[in-house]
Amino acid sequence: MLSVGVVGGTGYTGSELLRLLCVHPEVRVVLATSRKEKGRPVADLLPHLRGLVSLEYSEFDARAAADACDLLFLALPHGTAADHVKHLWEHDVKIVDLSADYRLPPDIYAKVYGHANPFPQQATYGLPELRPEVARARLVANPGCYPTGASLAAAPLVAAGLVELAVFDSKSGISGAGTEPTATSHYPNMAENVIPYSVTTHRHRAEIVQELGRLGDVRVRFVPHVFPGVRGILTTAHLELRRDVTPDEVERLYRDFYARAPFVRLQKPHLANVRGTNFCDIAWEVNRASPREVVVLSAIDNLGKGAAGQAVQNMNLMCGLDQTRGLFWPGLAP
Amino acid sequence: MLSVGVVGGTGYTGSELLRLLCVHPEVRVVLATSRKEKGRPVADLLPHLRGLVSLEYSEFDARAAADACDLLFLALPHGTAADHVKHLWEHDVKIVDLSADYRLPPDIYAKVYGHANPFPQQATYGLPELRPEVARARLVANPGCYPTGASLAAAPLVAAGLVELAVFDSKSGISGAGTEPTATSHYPNMAENVIPYSVTTHRHRAEIVQELGRLGDVRVRFVPHVFPGVRGILTTAHLELRRDVTPDEVERLYRDFYARAPFVRLQKPHLANVRGTNFCDIAWEVNRASPREVVVLSAIDNLGKGAAGQAVQNMNLMCGLDQTRGLFWPGLAP
Amino acid sequence: MLSVGVVGGTGYTGSELLRLLCVHPEVRVVLATSRKEKGRPVADLLPHLRGLVSLEYSEFDARAAADACDLLFLALPHGTAADHVKHLWEHDVKIVDLSADYRLPPDIYAKVYGHANPFPQQATYGLPELRPEVARARLVANPGCYPTGASLAAAPLVAAGLVELAVFDSKSGISGAGTEPTATSHYPNMAENVIPYSVTTHRHRAEIVQELGRLGDVRVRFVPHVFPGVRGILTTAHLELRRDVTPDEVERLYRDFYARAPFVRLQKPHLANVRGTNFCDIAWEVNRASPREVVVLSAIDNLGKGAAGQAVQNMNLMCGLDQTRGLFWPGLAP
Amino acid sequence: MLSVGVVGGTGYTGSELLRLLCVHPEVRVVLATSRKEKGRPVADLLPHLRGLVSLEYSEFDARAAADACDLLFLALPHGTAADHVKHLWEHDVKIVDLSADYRLPPDIYAKVYGHANPFPQQATYGLPELRPEVARARLVANPGCYPTGASLAAAPLVAAGLVELAVFDSKSGISGAGTEPTATSHYPNMAENVIPYSVTTHRHRAEIVQELGRLGDVRVRFVPHVFPGVRGILTTAHLELRRDVTPDEVERLYRDFYARAPFVRLQKPHLANVRGTNFCDIAWEVNRASPREVVVLSAIDNLGKGAAGQAVQNMNLMCGLDQTRGLFWPGLAP
Repeated sequence: MLSVGVVGGTGYTGSELLRLLCVHPEVRVVLATSRKEKGRPVADLLPHLRGLVSLEYSEFDARAAADACDLLFLALPHGTAADHVKHLWEHDVKIVDLSADYRLPPDIYAKVYGHANPFPQQATYGLPELRPEVARARLVANPGCYPTGASLAAAPLVAAGLVELAVFDSKSGISGAGTEPTATSHYPNMAENVIPYSVTTHRHRAEIVQELGRLGDVRVRFVPHVFPGVRGILTTAHLELRRDVTPDEVERLYRDFYARAPFVRLQKPHLANVRGTNFCDIAWEVNRASPREVVVLSAIDNLGKGAAGQAVQNMNLMCGLDQTRGLFWPGLAP
Repeated sequence: MLSVGVVGGTGYTGSELLRLLCVHPEVRVVLATSRKEKGRPVADLLPHLRGLVSLEYSEFDARAAADACDLLFLALPHGTAADHVKHLWEHDVKIVDLSADYRLPPDIYAKVYGHANPFPQQATYGLPELRPEVARARLVANPGCYPTGASLAAAPLVAAGLVELAVFDSKSGISGAGTEPTATSHYPNMAENVIPYSVTTHRHRAEIVQELGRLGDVRVRFVPHVFPGVRGILTTAHLELRRDVTPDEVERLYRDFYARAPFVRLQKPHLANVRGTNFCDIAWEVNRASPREVVVLSAIDNLGKGAAGQAVQNMNLMCGLDQTRGLFWPGLAP
Repeated sequence: MLSVGVVGGTGYTGSELLRLLCVHPEVRVVLATSRKEKGRPVADLLPHLRGLVSLEYSEFDARAAADACDLLFLALPHGTAADHVKHLWEHDVKIVDLSADYRLPPDIYAKVYGHANPFPQQATYGLPELRPEVARARLVANPGCYPTGASLAAAPLVAAGLVELAVFDSKSGISGAGTEPTATSHYPNMAENVIPYSVTTHRHRAEIVQELGRLGDVRVRFVPHVFPGVRGILTTAHLELRRDVTPDEVERLYRDFYARAPFVRLQKPHLANVRGTNFCDIAWEVNRASPREVVVLSAIDNLGKGAAGQAVQNMNLMCGLDQTRGLFWPGLAP
Repeated sequence: MLSVGVVGGTGYTGSELLRLLCVHPEVRVVLATSRKEKGRPVADLLPHLRGLVSLEYSEFDARAAADACDLLFLALPHGTAADHVKHLWEHDVKIVDLSADYRLPPDIYAKVYGHANPFPQQATYGLPELRPEVARARLVANPGCYPTGASLAAAPLVAAGLVELAVFDSKSGISGAGTEPTATSHYPNMAENVIPYSVTTHRHRAEIVQELGRLGDVRVRFVPHVFPGVRGILTTAHLELRRDVTPDEVERLYRDFYARAPFVRLQKPHLANVRGTNFCDIAWEVNRASPREVVVLSAIDNLGKGAAGQAVQNMNLMCGLDQTRGLFWPGLAP
């Protein structure tokens, strides 16, 4: 039985971690921290967990957290997470950081996020389908939601050296923007609307460039949108190839690449099928009239495979469990 | 040609007034005020009006407003509106106040709103189907959105002395809660949800009691909800009668009562049919197995007949125009 | 380990049963039937179950089904279910019937449904919080979705003899209407809308009358609506009492009544908190200004506690398992 | 005063034509045809028009229609429309055909639609911003919804010879799929979802290729999606240019190109701002880190500028009216 803690347990990723962990058969959640909600029962803030989680929020204390837990999840804003890693570093505890702080090398991080990481450390980018070395990591940088869906969609074709240009057009549910009400998340603004944002400047582009760049030479474009939905990212990957391909060839590449990836299902992406889960469903279409054009589609739950689910998958691997343990649920359809 | 102004032109009711007035054939909008947005083009804040409204927001000045306008709409929070009425009172200008400040007698107002009205005045409750005297008013108190849909639904049966108990269960689009993002209007909270609020204490109950009480002796219950939609209020009026009725009898009562009401349509309420309009669609069903039970349904656009549309209807009547002038548009369906 | 089968496994209740059962720790699903889809993998029709259910649909055969299974769920249209019960009756197999066929006594059934039940039998109404005798039943009639939410909301006050009139105004997600596309479920008709239906004639009223009538003397009204959501029923119970009550008294009644009901949570109903679960969340408000008026609110997942979840709860009880076994999941919020 | 008719007046484009035309100050609608609904009042099928349209549906008769009308709108399925044109051709009546039958040259039409046009004729492609010759046409082929939003988004840059590759990723409200309930339009399938379809094979691609090909040399990709909304198309045009550009240069190109286009507004696209209107709102962003990448966004109402609104704009031009006549309404926001 693993003892784990969630540092920053009131946002959507923290609450999704608690939702997954409270029914994980190998895990006991012994800690959920929040400075602001210290002393309040978790179920008062997260009433969907009433009856399942009896913890109270406590304030973060590095030594106590490390003593009590085998592994800690950091569900904190970027910048803040690195501070916590610093205080935890001398203690013997594994860490899955869900912020952006350790996803990029320090120099690129500084450029993309506009400030230096206060405590740069070697970390493993926690996309297990592309990074089996997660199993040996002490500090895992859990990927961004968009890069997860985008990288998994294109990886097999990029790794085969086929992709010249990859244009990722992603549509995300609004839960990705967090629990804080904003003009964008205001129902009358979001309903019946699709809103592009950070059109050429979204920080997740750097992660996609990094992960696909390790696999092959490709030019990357990325435009995120929010659509009127709560959970889920549908990514449309418009790929321009270096040569013509056949549907069979593409199918073989995907089947081989994901042969040992239990969370990747090669079927028509439909967000309800992955809702609440750690699955990534992928399908593609070769333009028969112009077979250098391939469109790949992927669907994930942005809070699942795009955040908390993947974090638990990383925990499983880091702690020697089967990666599907406590995570292999059917999607909530309809 | 009437010259009119909108005082408080940035919220949803102010913006809906501008939307209706900018294409009204007998009206010139010469003024839109906002302290906060003073000097900015209206179309910068309300880009759906780009190309149609070239005004800039100005700061409210009572004398200048009264000089420039035949009629002013006050789209202000309650409390604030009365202050503006006070400054306008000595000037020669008609007023339609969309706040709650003049809807109730001063003593009831003080009890319901928890403070005295700083400038109590005689006003006419602006529900023209029940109050033809609107045409002679200088100051009209535009009704609340819920009381409009509820009172119109039950009025014919209450006026016939038939209704003992009226339980109004109303479902409103979230635009009724205003432009300010809140936890309730946060998309992930509102989507796939129906949220009751002010369950036994909503202030609009007093208006329904007042308007139906003028027509007959009836006990009133009222519970408002928001549902995942932007515009529209569907009111389900569960009526317990004093005696059995027949469907024919009820039909006759409604046809007679609304014979000269161009904005009341006796047809199955469906919110899209009234979207963007000043219509109130009404239908009913007598329980054949227990004919003292009648359920009446009404549909309005909360920003239309429930606010700005009705305010323009009142303006038309106060200024001697046909009440349908500039208001007789088809609903935006689908 | 129980062996169970789902007869009629392609609709929403059948698919929800499979979703719950495929991860139930004491259950093996050995059968899913569909005449139309015979021979096709379940996961082709229900791709959210891909990787979790490897069954193929087969055609129903009473003897084979009874031989293979300890318990069968019937997820069939009313009328059809009774036919299946008839063929199963001579075999030794427990049955949870999710249709309406055994919820009412034969005479009332015939009146409400317009035809006689072709195979009337003694069955237990499967609302375990009100009917502990479920544990001894061979044939359980799983309740309707609306009656579950409505009866649980009002039961404590009705059982205390306090309620004179109960007006249930229910708002359901559209999944309750089934998988078949209709004009009502057509997205442009349902979006931004609330649609009342069967306003005074819905068949579920008879179940509410039956269950509350066992507890006390009460007049029942019931109007169902669909709102723009997929799962969930929010029921607003407008209760007119026989005498004044205090909030404390009401609280005590609810706490006592549901003291041993693990799936009833006395907290503010919010549909996301019960999404995908078997919980029923209940709260109430006494009108302080008029303390004979109490409004009670309940939230369930219409496919969970309103159908498949409750069916699994009944299975647990009928088979000697703890009623929460395989069912105690947190709601999918947000 | 023009006399006009709508042939095929029961679908969404036919009903939107009636909605626009019934309040058009220069138009009298004298005819609405439907074989199936012959003899029924239009307002029974389209209750949002109750009080505004008193016509009954009649059966189509070419001679009678041509005698009664100066101009006919054909809101019919492709294939059927050409048949009607054939019967109308010898009569003196202008035609705006909203089907696909006359949008493409006969040879390309046959390839794309899989059958020859039964009555090929010279027609003008009715995208007035690109085709001023509409004013002299007798038969106008009203463009597809997607091609309108896509072509207007990219036209200025393509006409400047700058665009090498244009990847159009379009997100449409589901009303584009028509009034007939389908699995895709079934609320539980569409809600909380984004559904790509005809991923590399959508027929509208041929129109985009045609219209942009007239302006410059460009490779076109196009993937349509439906999102959970009723009206509106947001098109994200990912453009790969032949050389670096500056934001100022791009701004100048758009301002010049659309200087005389009253329905094109150069402002941030937000679907509510164009809802119910004939506007196309356009904005763009040059990637400063890689200035050969430009992303252009456009927003239209698929039933407005994407269908009926544009048809009325074409009517205005064909009949010598100002193109904005009866069409210059503010969008229905929020």
